[in-house]
Amino acid sequence: MSSFKELLLLLLIVQISRGYKEKGPRFQPTVGEVWPKPNSRINYGDYFEVSENLNFLVNPGSCAIVQQAVIRYKDMIIEKSKKSYVKSEDRATSQIVQNFQITFTDSCTVNMIPNEEMDESYTLKSNSLEAKSVWGVLRGLETLSQIIVRTKLNKLIIPNTLITDAPRFPYRGIMIDTSRHFIEVDKIIELLDGMSFNKFNVLHWHMTDDQSFPFDSLVYPNLALKGAYFPDMIYSVQNVIAIVEYARLRGIRVIPEFDTPGHMGSWAASHPEIMTKCGGINNGIYGLINPSVPESWEFLYNLYEEIFGIFPDKYVHLGADEVDTDCWETNQGVQDWLVANNMDNVDLRYHYLERLAANTSSSFNRLPILWQEAFIENPGLTLPSKAIAQIWFDYKAVMAKITGDGYRTIMSDGWYLYVLDSGGDWEKFYTVEPTNWTGTASKKELVFGGEGCLWTEFLNSNNIIPTTFPRASAIAERLWSTKETTDINDATFRLEEHNCRMMLRGVHCRPANDFGFC
Amino acid sequence: MSSFKELLLLLLIVQISRGYKEKGPRFQPTVGEVWPKPNSRINYGDYFEVSENLNFLVNPGSCAIVQQAVIRYKDMIIEKSKKSYVKSEDRATSQIVQNFQITFTDSCTVNMIPNEEMDESYTLKSNSLEAKSVWGVLRGLETLSQIIVRTKLNKLIIPNTLITDAPRFPYRGIMIDTSRHFIEVDKIIELLDGMSFNKFNVLHWHMTDDQSFPFDSLVYPNLALKGAYFPDMIYSVQNVIAIVEYARLRGIRVIPEFDTPGHMGSWAASHPEIMTKCGGINNGIYGLINPSVPESWEFLYNLYEEIFGIFPDKYVHLGADEVDTDCWETNQGVQDWLVANNMDNVDLRYHYLERLAANTSSSFNRLPILWQEAFIENPGLTLPSKAIAQIWFDYKAVMAKITGDGYRTIMSDGWYLYVLDSGGDWEKFYTVEPTNWTGTASKKELVFGGEGCLWTEFLNSNNIIPTTFPRASAIAERLWSTKETTDINDATFRLEEHNCRMMLRGVHCRPANDFGFC
Repeated sequence: MSSFKELLLLLLIVQISRGYKEKGPRFQPTVGEVWPKPNSRINYGDYFEVSENLNFLVNPGSCAIVQQAVIRYKDMIIEKSKKSYVKSEDRATSQIVQNFQITFTDSCTVNMIPNEEMDESYTLKSNSLEAKSVWGVLRGLETLSQIIVRTKLNKLIIPNTLITDAPRFPYRGIMIDTSRHFIEVDKIIELLDGMSFNKFNVLHWHMTDDQSFPFDSLVYPNLALKGAYFPDMIYSVQNVIAIVEYARLRGIRVIPEFDTPGHMGSWAASHPEIMTKCGGINNGIYGLINPSVPESWEFLYNLYEEIFGIFPDKYVHLGADEVDTDCWETNQGVQDWLVANNMDNVDLRYHYLERLAANTSSSFNRLPILWQEAFIENPGLTLPSKAIAQIWFDYKAVMAKITGDGYRTIMSDGWYLYVLDSGGDWEKFYTVEPTNWTGTASKKELVFGGEGCLWTEFLNSNNIIPTTFPRASAIAERLWSTKETTDINDATFRLEEHNCRMMLRGVHCRPANDFGFC
Repeated sequence: MSSFKELLLLLLIVQISRGYKEKGPRFQPTVGEVWPKPNSRINYGDYFEVSENLNFLVNPGSCAIVQQAVIRYKDMIIEKSKKSYVKSEDRATSQIVQNFQITFTDSCTVNMIPNEEMDESYTLKSNSLEAKSVWGVLRGLETLSQIIVRTKLNKLIIPNTLITDAPRFPYRGIMIDTSRHFIEVDKIIELLDGMSFNKFNVLHWHMTDDQSFPFDSLVYPNLALKGAYFPDMIYSVQNVIAIVEYARLRGIRVIPEFDTPGHMGSWAASHPEIMTKCGGINNGIYGLINPSVPESWEFLYNLYEEIFGIFPDKYVHLGADEVDTDCWETNQGVQDWLVANNMDNVDLRYHYLERLAANTSSSFNRLPILWQEAFIENPGLTLPSKAIAQIWFDYKAVMAKITGDGYRTIMSDGWYLYVLDSGGDWEKFYTVEPTNWTGTASKKELVFGGEGCLWTEFLNSNNIIPTTFPRASAIAERLWSTKETTDINDATFRLEEHNCRMMLRGVHCRPANDFGFC
């Protein structure tokens, strides 16, 4: 297959290369176009000059999130643009924008956090931005920073424009797996930067898995001490707090996942007392968590208490993917406990997930997200009605099934970012449509969004950013823009510009399409 | 096809992930194994301690290349190893290696450069390295730095060993294309570092192509001024000199390619007077160079004079790939000139290549390398007998054909590094065998080596290094080690260690295989 693919590529290359080409990029980047594409944009045809001393007038002015965003975006608009390779033709300008008015109507409080109900809509004109919430202001400022460009004569200009915009889906995420490979903190920060430039609003942090436990819990320090790959491959509580705060200021939620009851090999390294020792073919291995001993529930309570102290989001991802119950079935203690409690092996699967979800809900007021298997393999599982299923394979059937049970879903099937092909392979992500399955309109309204997934079997700190951007930008546009935004040709040229823009701002993107300077 | 591949991957993932895994990497790296694998290695079973104040005694001691290498390798062996994630079990050691003796017999001169006839063989023991030439010393020091490791108790140890080693092929290269995307100087330096850790010995610099002309010629400054993507996307003469010198000190030749007669779109931006204006379907486009006007030959003479002043290698790559002669055939001036000189369109192809090769040979004493098309499309082309053909597709037929004409070849078919697949896809490069075609032993001796090719349509400074390493390491071992070195399982574990080692030394590699800490 690999050589067949190579042959196809070769033919393509030979075909492309023959003949004559003039100097320059294959796709000339657009100038001042927006990614992801806004819902509605009217250009009146004329331009205004933007002052190099642009003032942002903010009402109300006391909001820290907006004030900090203004500082960031002023730097991007005025300073970073000086080094841009994308320049506009010179334009006649009728007046100078000296003051830019930002207005929002909802309250802004010190500890407010982005959430599933946040309003991200905004209305942008050449000298004003109006939004209901601070989150809409953040999205509008990103758009503003994309439509102000420098001309070849180094003048800052903005078109006379009216943009009315709001996201199609409320949940637009990237999942990062920090267990298969440790990802350095500064790369997670760079990932958040790139996410904010694409209006993503959720970082789903798949913190732990079989391979390593990189979270340095203060309550159970042996988890990282014995479970991390190495003592310097850990995230301290301070690291996590800094990442969550960095995300919050950009309107990005951070949802933790400490996957159970499987994928816990790294927990077993330090806490075998909460694990189930397998019999049978896996004899002696610590497999799943052991729900039959009170230590396990106490442990989970204490750990989640710590986790929820530093991850303020209302949601928690409980994992529950790829659960092989062989160990429960071959462990005598578990089997004895089942008999004593009048349960069988099937009951145990329900018992574990329902008790875990109920505990996080009753004790910590958190709502669960789970991988699709929890819903599909356990029909009738009782979860909070606001629980969310994350779909990662066979989505046409699974979306229909799970929304049929009334649960909301997020789409990840087709959005596994480590799936690499030669070339500018973003189109395969762009053409995924989360509602492309058979179901009623009301069921499709349960599609709550989607997530690009960065499983790190083959990613580390050196290649995670160029693997993510600009390929994840395709997912961002699918989740933000209207369903009708499917023009590959239009997207190709805009993505070329967007890639130049992201690189200018310090995100180490790979090329978007083909030869060129972006 | 993409979704079929995704499905296969998915099945693979589901298959791998089900079941229970204990903490840790999928493939535990070896400790103190060598990449590429030496020809012969005997381990006597015992170990020596290596002093933290290890002295290198060099005879003769006046050789700058060796003295500088000693400084570099001492840093890797003593200092960089302190942060290594790969540690040996504690070993009993019988004595301390305090002095390490390096001896070589050939002369070492100030301006010596690596070349096609250099002797890279060496014999390495636990306290001595013997080689014929300084180049062998460089290769031996690399091996030495790989077999000295730190124990978990932080002691430096070396096994009592005897390594006798020499490369299978004299030409082991990486090609970099700096026209489709500009690659920053510091990334070329990092590429050279990585190459030296893999015993590569040629950097083939495909400097120019249709898309941009990044070399800042002092003789023809408009080439870069009008032909580079942007004024800061150029290599100054000083940049080139620094890169060539950095390579020389590591025993790496740098062979320039300024591709002609096609792939010259970026030349036309500044010097249309040497180009052929097309008629017919490409009407008005500047296609190939115009061999019918004396200005072209004068131009090439002057430019090559400058190029050869800063690239001292005996060889030059003349390009000549993908030549579409349509422009010559539709240009009236060229056609008139052919008539006046009693030539036809086929003659012109021969005339151009033979004259160019003869000129670089007679005026500059350089020998040519050309892409396979020059040989295949022009049977009986008269080139210097030491000319080399670079093979990039259909290698079984093409190798047989070109060696049948008595020319040497280098293999690149199957070694196009931008061909990406999900996962640790180095095996596809590892399993390429340059002599796997039908021919006599004497013909196969004409296979002079091979090259991994970094065409940069989809590579830029952000992803070129993790795309190259450790995938190119597979090519390095194929070209250095014996033909029988084909054990994928053995290579997998060694490559895991080698990747850790390269990263420790500052090369931004992607993961080699699967989850882990390297």
